[in-house]
Amino acid sequence: MSEINNRRAAAAGKLSSERIDALLVSHLPNVRYLTGFTGSHAMLLLGRNSATLYTDPRYDLQASAQCDCPVRIAKGPLLTEVVKEIRRRRFRRVGIESERLSYQQGIEFRSALRRQAEIKPVAALVESLRAIKSASERKAIRAAVELNSKAFETVMRRFRPGMTERSLAAEIAFEMRNLGADGEAFPTIVASRAHSALPHAEPRGVRIQSGGFLLVDMGAALNGYASDMTRTMYVGHPGQRAKDLYAAVLEAQLAAIDAVKPGVPAASVDAAARAVLQRRGLGGYFRHSTGHGLGLEIHEMPRLGANCDTLLEPGMAVTIEPGAYVPGFGGVRIEDTVLVTGRGCEILTPTPKELVVLTV
Amino acid sequence: MSEINNRRAAAAGKLSSERIDALLVSHLPNVRYLTGFTGSHAMLLLGRNSATLYTDPRYDLQASAQCDCPVRIAKGPLLTEVVKEIRRRRFRRVGIESERLSYQQGIEFRSALRRQAEIKPVAALVESLRAIKSASERKAIRAAVELNSKAFETVMRRFRPGMTERSLAAEIAFEMRNLGADGEAFPTIVASRAHSALPHAEPRGVRIQSGGFLLVDMGAALNGYASDMTRTMYVGHPGQRAKDLYAAVLEAQLAAIDAVKPGVPAASVDAAARAVLQRRGLGGYFRHSTGHGLGLEIHEMPRLGANCDTLLEPGMAVTIEPGAYVPGFGGVRIEDTVLVTGRGCEILTPTPKELVVLTV
Repeated sequence: MSEINNRRAAAAGKLSSERIDALLVSHLPNVRYLTGFTGSHAMLLLGRNSATLYTDPRYDLQASAQCDCPVRIAKGPLLTEVVKEIRRRRFRRVGIESERLSYQQGIEFRSALRRQAEIKPVAALVESLRAIKSASERKAIRAAVELNSKAFETVMRRFRPGMTERSLAAEIAFEMRNLGADGEAFPTIVASRAHSALPHAEPRGVRIQSGGFLLVDMGAALNGYASDMTRTMYVGHPGQRAKDLYAAVLEAQLAAIDAVKPGVPAASVDAAARAVLQRRGLGGYFRHSTGHGLGLEIHEMPRLGANCDTLLEPGMAVTIEPGAYVPGFGGVRIEDTVLVTGRGCEILTPTPKELVVLTV
Repeated sequence: MSEINNRRAAAAGKLSSERIDALLVSHLPNVRYLTGFTGSHAMLLLGRNSATLYTDPRYDLQASAQCDCPVRIAKGPLLTEVVKEIRRRRFRRVGIESERLSYQQGIEFRSALRRQAEIKPVAALVESLRAIKSASERKAIRAAVELNSKAFETVMRRFRPGMTERSLAAEIAFEMRNLGADGEAFPTIVASRAHSALPHAEPRGVRIQSGGFLLVDMGAALNGYASDMTRTMYVGHPGQRAKDLYAAVLEAQLAAIDAVKPGVPAASVDAAARAVLQRRGLGGYFRHSTGHGLGLEIHEMPRLGANCDTLLEPGMAVTIEPGAYVPGFGGVRIEDTVLVTGRGCEILTPTPKELVVLTV
C-alpha cells in the first residue's frame, strides 16, 4: 500500500472517534497530503471506506495523473458535487474542517444537506497527523533545509557593497530555484539596520549600509516541503550593545534547542528561550513564539508558544527562532529547523551561528 | 482627505444600505485597501464614523507607521478585542465578510456577541469598491504591467539551449525583482511541449526541447499591485496544426478585447472569445474563464466568465486570456491586462503577440 494510501487509512481511522461518517477536507495542504494532488482548487470527501477528490476542469489531466483515488471534475461549485455524493452514500454526519472552510461555505453546505446529514465542526484532524513526519517527509524537509543553507551561503559569498535589501532577497530566491527549489516557501525577508527590528519587514530598495544588523529570513519549497532559516549578520563594526544582543539571542536559541525532547510540552521550549532573554533584560523585546512546525506548509502544528500544551513527539519538525527587536536600534533572530528524535532533537540546519561581520 | 480615508468613507457609506452598524473586515487585501496596513495578520472594524485596526505585537511599529486610523495590538485572538469594541460602541448589527472568515471564527464570533449584536453575512462590499481603480491604482497597475513586460523581454533575449522550465521561471522571477518588483504576483508558470496543455502546470526541472509550445504565465507584484501576462512561443519549427492553434487563440483574444466596453456584461467578453474558438472547432479545449480583475490581488472582481452578469465600468482592470489546450499536443494561452475606459479599453501590456519562434 502506498504511503498516501496509508495516510488516508490513518485519517479514516479517526472518523469514528469523531462520530462522523465522512470528513470534507477543504484545506489544500490536507488534500495534497491525502491524495498527492497539487492543484489550487480541490476538496476531498473522505469516508470510512471511500475517498473522492473534487476539482475543476482546469485540473482534469493533472488530477488523474496525481491521484490514486476517484476524481470528479465539477463544472460548478465543488460543494454541489460533494452534496450529491453524500446523498448517494447516505452519510448522516459529515465533519467539516471548520477553520479551513469559509463561514459562507459552511452555512450553504449545512443548508444544502439539511434533510440528509448534519455537519460537525472538526479541528485539525488531518493537521495532527501531518505533525508527525514519515521517513519520506523527513527526507524531503532535510533536503529543503540543506538547499536553503546552500543557497544562503552561496549568495552571501557574493555579498557586495551597493546591494539593496531587495536585490539580496532576489538573489536568494533565484539561487534557491537555481538549486532546484519549487520556489520560496514564503517571501524572503531581508532587513537592515533599524528595519531589522520589524520581525516581518519587507525588503526595501535601499542599499545595505554599514552600522547595523542585517537579518535574512528565508525558506525553500522543495518537492512541496518547506524549510525555514534566519540568520542575522552585522554590517560594519559591531559595538558592545550589538554583540550583547546577538549573544543573548544565540544563548536563548541554544537553550530552546536543548529543551526539545519527546514528551516535553511545546510551551516549555518557548519558556526556555524566554527565560534567557528575560534574564538579560530583553524579555520585552521578544514578542513572538519561539517556533512552529513546518512541512507541506511553512506554519504547521505544533506551535511552540507560551500556552501550547502539545507534547513533542519523535518525527515532529519544528523551527527554533527566538528574537529580540529593539525599536530604533535593530533586531536579531536566529532560526534553525530541528527534528524531534527519540532522545532529543537533531538540528537539520547546517549553517553556523556565530556572529558574521560583513563590510560594505 | 487622503485616498485611504476616502476609501473608508466610501465603504462606511455602504453600511446603511446593508443595514449594519459596522463591518468586520477580515480579508487582508481589504484591510490593506482601507488602512494601508501590509502585514499578514489583521482585522478592521469599520463603523459608520469609526475605524479600528487590530493586529498582533509583531506588527506594533509597522501598523502605527502605516495606518492613519487607531490601532489596537491584541495579545490573544483578534476577535476577542473586536468583541470588546463592539460592546463599547454598542453596535447591534455587525456585518462579516462571510466568504473571508472561517466557519469556526464566524460561529465563535456569533456566540461571543450573542447578547450584544447579531451578525449579518455580507458579500463583496469592499471587493466591489476595489473593482474600480482610482487614478493612483491605475498608475500602480500600469507600472506593474510594464515591469512585467520588461522582465519577460529581458529574460527571453537571454533564452539559450539547455534552459529548463524551472531555470527560465527562476530568471523571470529574479528579473522582476531586479527591476524593482516586490516579488511574483503568483508562481511563474513555464510549461513546454505537451505540458503546456495543463493550464496551471508547475515548472519542471526538464530541459526545454524543440518541437512544441513554450507557455509563460507571469505576474509581478509592485507596490502591492499585480500584473498578469501570458505569452506562448514555439520552440523549433511550428507545423500547420501549431500555427492554426495559435492563430485561433490570438483571434479569440482580440475578439474578447474588442468586446470590452463600459456597460457590457462580463459574460459577453467571455462569449466573444468562446465563439471564435468554437467556430474553429476548439471550443472543447477552452476550459476556463476568459479573464479576471486584478489589483491588490491577482484575482479580483469582476470575473469574465460565462455566467457573470457584472457590467463593465471605466476604471476596471482585467485580464483577457483565452486559451486552447490539446491534451498530448500542447496548449496556447495569450493574456494581456487591459483597463476599461470611457469608450472601450486600453491594452496595458506592451509585449507583441505574434507567434515567436525560438531555437534550442
